[in-house]
Amino acid sequence: MTIALVLVGDELLGGSRRDRNGPWLAARCRELGVRVGEMHLVGDDPGRLAALLSGAARRNTSVCVSGGLGPTSDDVTRAALAEAMGVALVEDEAAWAQIRACLRRRGRVPAAGERRQALVPAGAQVLANEAGVAPGVRARLAGATVYALPGVPHELEAMFTAHVAPELVADADAGVARAVWIVGVPESDVAEQIEPLVRGVEVASYPHLGELEIVLRASGERADERVRRAEQAVRERLGARVYDPAPGERIEHVVVRLLAERGLHLATAESFTGGLVAAMLTRVPGASAVFTGGWVTYATEEKSARLGVPAETIAAHGVVSEAVAGAMAEGARQRGGTELGLATTGAAGPDGVEVPGRAPVPPGRVCLALARAGGSTEARTLYLPHGRRLVQRFGAVRALDMVRRALGRGAG
Amino acid sequence: MTIALVLVGDELLGGSRRDRNGPWLAARCRELGVRVGEMHLVGDDPGRLAALLSGAARRNTSVCVSGGLGPTSDDVTRAALAEAMGVALVEDEAAWAQIRACLRRRGRVPAAGERRQALVPAGAQVLANEAGVAPGVRARLAGATVYALPGVPHELEAMFTAHVAPELVADADAGVARAVWIVGVPESDVAEQIEPLVRGVEVASYPHLGELEIVLRASGERADERVRRAEQAVRERLGARVYDPAPGERIEHVVVRLLAERGLHLATAESFTGGLVAAMLTRVPGASAVFTGGWVTYATEEKSARLGVPAETIAAHGVVSEAVAGAMAEGARQRGGTELGLATTGAAGPDGVEVPGRAPVPPGRVCLALARAGGSTEARTLYLPHGRRLVQRFGAVRALDMVRRALGRGAG
Repeated sequence: MTIALVLVGDELLGGSRRDRNGPWLAARCRELGVRVGEMHLVGDDPGRLAALLSGAARRNTSVCVSGGLGPTSDDVTRAALAEAMGVALVEDEAAWAQIRACLRRRGRVPAAGERRQALVPAGAQVLANEAGVAPGVRARLAGATVYALPGVPHELEAMFTAHVAPELVADADAGVARAVWIVGVPESDVAEQIEPLVRGVEVASYPHLGELEIVLRASGERADERVRRAEQAVRERLGARVYDPAPGERIEHVVVRLLAERGLHLATAESFTGGLVAAMLTRVPGASAVFTGGWVTYATEEKSARLGVPAETIAAHGVVSEAVAGAMAEGARQRGGTELGLATTGAAGPDGVEVPGRAPVPPGRVCLALARAGGSTEARTLYLPHGRRLVQRFGAVRALDMVRRALGRGAG
Repeated sequence: MTIALVLVGDELLGGSRRDRNGPWLAARCRELGVRVGEMHLVGDDPGRLAALLSGAARRNTSVCVSGGLGPTSDDVTRAALAEAMGVALVEDEAAWAQIRACLRRRGRVPAAGERRQALVPAGAQVLANEAGVAPGVRARLAGATVYALPGVPHELEAMFTAHVAPELVADADAGVARAVWIVGVPESDVAEQIEPLVRGVEVASYPHLGELEIVLRASGERADERVRRAEQAVRERLGARVYDPAPGERIEHVVVRLLAERGLHLATAESFTGGLVAAMLTRVPGASAVFTGGWVTYATEEKSARLGVPAETIAAHGVVSEAVAGAMAEGARQRGGTELGLATTGAAGPDGVEVPGRAPVPPGRVCLALARAGGSTEARTLYLPHGRRLVQRFGAVRALDMVRRALGRGAG
């Protein structure tokens, strides 16, 4: 069985506003073990939408539509669905009563178009909307079940969870899925390493800008046991590279949680990442308990002036070097009065970094260092061949991962 | 005339990897004045893709497909297009010669599947790929022109620009569009302010996480004159709020360019934005000419220790205050040895900021300051009611906009 996702609204096709509902629905379907066969974005055009719905219903077992259920004339989903089904729109009395009750609770009198929201294609069922005004619709079309839900994200999410997910699960082949997250191994290498370990289990990997989510899935007999065995083999093979974010979390959440659990504090000293490591940490609510502050020492002389990196170290090793990264990390740690200091220096590109008396540092070469109280500092050099923005992003993720690996797995 | 965009690849439907090609293509079509009628994401499934292409070709004048042209067996676009057209795949000799030449330049011997990339549906034309191996295809299907391009973003972008855009423009109804960019006015207020000024011109606005793009469009008689008149009226009404990024640029590019043109340097001092202002500036290639570095002083005591904010100022005004923002900006400017210092302090949420002896600062209240050589500092307070990540992002954009407004319009 497969599902088609259809997102309705002129605003989705302008190239500026990114659709959020499609990725949200796709991620939920994946968690439920339901394969998404296709996803469509279409404007407020009833003829076009009707044609799309007919095609999607023929090719899939379910179709989930988001948007176009409101009270205005560009809300075309009900009419398009009725057209595709070849039936008329009829008013559902219970739906109209619900709409009026909902508006009354909000202190509003129904506006002219509001009654349109009680129309459903003949033979379809109304789905209650606890979070908003417009009810949803469930209908059969060309052998598939079509769910039409509002486009307002919190209404969509509540209604998908209440009405659609349980039916998909009941129909699905009840697969079992487990995720393993890692940083620092290219997707292609991971596939090679783990495929021999996971016989009888389906593997998919999803890169998240430097983090990699590996999903192991099986269905049928002893699916749970097979997936757990595969997961254990993968975790053993990948060892300390594995960490455990809670749903919706990323590595910065894991790092903040690990620091908080251990009562540790971190200071940052950034060159090629330009503040991104600090910005990622401070996205996490409560980061102030573990992150006091940091330095962006973008110019070479700033590294000496702010962090006390000796000019001789820079002259001897070059500004992109493990020695300079280490001195930056220790400088940040001491000046910040923290247990840990994390530093980045490198060439983000598009040009290399000119170093007096040496060959230029090629774009993508970066050095990272983590300093700990007591004087132990570890440093490493990486080559990140992805272009400026991704060198910065991947470098920041790898820097955070040094902290994570120093502290443990970080189960969410 | 409308265009359908079709993005091919299993990885697009997993809910993790966001498609970038669709929004890029949609934005280019908008700039060219070509309406996007629908957008589809579909997996590597030739039957499903063939059915989708047939439907899209019937409903639109052009179809642009991205992805599925490579050498492996999941690259299904050529076969699906041939199936939809009801023709066989035939080898194009010139294409095969180009592929071999390209691989030779990269020092590679053609692998087993590579020759598949020279197959095209009978009657279709090959589109040269200057940036990669797999050539593109142009074909006619159900009255529409179908363009199949690679999914690798830089190849797609180069080929769309070289082969597709000129043909779309030649076919388009030659509408005229001009964009005006602003920061700091809610979308709904802008609509109210400018709609009376732009009779006979279509207005659309596109929010970009704190920046707002207003597009004025017209077609038919004297379209150019009408759009220019509307643009002038909008620019007069919005005054200094308007700036002029080059295509693909954002406010951080404008700020870096303005600083470079004036030979000025900036240092940053960030609290609630946590390094995001610095990270945005350093995304811009060449930022090192104008940005030497900055401080992330997240903890209150760091603001005094690093930037010399007097403890009395904090005690008298609270840590989220224009006085503290101003002292941070001036502290960064002096310590950085720069002509300008930019500072942020505020409550990003989800919780407010506790202040000894005062009411807590509510989430979303932020203060920004810009210090200039000679001691003149301007500061302002804003309320940004969007949740932690967007408070940080909108605050960083508003801070950069203070620099932009101090320096001028920043034409790209």
